[in-house]
Amino acid sequence: MKFCSQCGSSAIVWQVPDGDNRPRHVCSQCNEIYYQNPKLVVGSIPEWEDRILLCRRAIAPRHGYWTLPAGFMENGETTPEAAERETLEEANARVEILHLYTVLNIPHTNQVYMMFRSRLLDLDFSPGSESLEVELFREEDIPWGELAFPTIEQTLRLFFDDRRRAEFGVHLGDISANWHDKRFVKRRPRE
Amino acid sequence: MKFCSQCGSSAIVWQVPDGDNRPRHVCSQCNEIYYQNPKLVVGSIPEWEDRILLCRRAIAPRHGYWTLPAGFMENGETTPEAAERETLEEANARVEILHLYTVLNIPHTNQVYMMFRSRLLDLDFSPGSESLEVELFREEDIPWGELAFPTIEQTLRLFFDDRRRAEFGVHLGDISANWHDKRFVKRRPRE
Repeated sequence: MKFCSQCGSSAIVWQVPDGDNRPRHVCSQCNEIYYQNPKLVVGSIPEWEDRILLCRRAIAPRHGYWTLPAGFMENGETTPEAAERETLEEANARVEILHLYTVLNIPHTNQVYMMFRSRLLDLDFSPGSESLEVELFREEDIPWGELAFPTIEQTLRLFFDDRRRAEFGVHLGDISANWHDKRFVKRRPRE
Repeated sequence: MKFCSQCGSSAIVWQVPDGDNRPRHVCSQCNEIYYQNPKLVVGSIPEWEDRILLCRRAIAPRHGYWTLPAGFMENGETTPEAAERETLEEANARVEILHLYTVLNIPHTNQVYMMFRSRLLDLDFSPGSESLEVELFREEDIPWGELAFPTIEQTLRLFFDDRRRAEFGVHLGDISANWHDKRFVKRRPRE
């Protein structure tokens, strides 16, 4: 942030505003405060019988790696609408959103992932502009070594575990910066 | 948005960038694109035996109305950490976060609420700088007509219903612009 988007001044400082407890970008000319907050990444796990739809990414980051359809939530929509839209945009696939499945915090990238289970309505899918390929995978064929993000791997691992036990919950957890070295901490409801 | 925060130009236009499908603020001088995304509001339902902690707001909007402790999630934290921090800031109350309880979409204000059940660790609470009063309420004493936001009312109604049935799930739903005229649509997992 180099200029104030309200008054155009370049007098932007990084300081704790009055009554606040953490530093923000503040315009010392007009006193405008700029807050930055985590973004929601929303997507779906499209199911067709025993197979799951994955997309191979045509864009950075992780070009060429496989992912579940997901992306930044937009203003004016709900989380299930965002999941449905991302699935349509990335895979030209129509789904019925079933229910919330994983909520994954990624504090080091300022993101929260929300992934929904969904049911593919037909097999008329194809790569959207952000995908190279779109394909259905059985569990044994999932390209575990070529998944784009830890959130996607974690969501798929939980999904296949739960499917084996025929019991799907809502999973909340964190993805740490050194995720590949650590076990994912699965938080279960405690009563 | 009147000036580009990257180059300082006032040539900000509202248009659909190449490869995108919705209008954004774009700087026609340096081509920087400004995305706006929904914000997460995270909070907790602090329980002490059969009572719930509420805060009376000392700030706009809804000054003087009662709320559960909640606020905008900050960068660098997880959702349970945000719930714990907001409860500490608004009520000087220490809680153990139990589990995710409501996820409420508010598309007309570009917000998603996430409320967690929590357990008060002691009774040593007091109003934080954003609260006028902090008090424990039994169900029959909840000031239903003086609650600050539909999300808070909805979370409390679901909570007391679930408590009566001794069965707490995760609830996903939407709050519409004309919420006070409509029934909240409770979405349950469908298998």
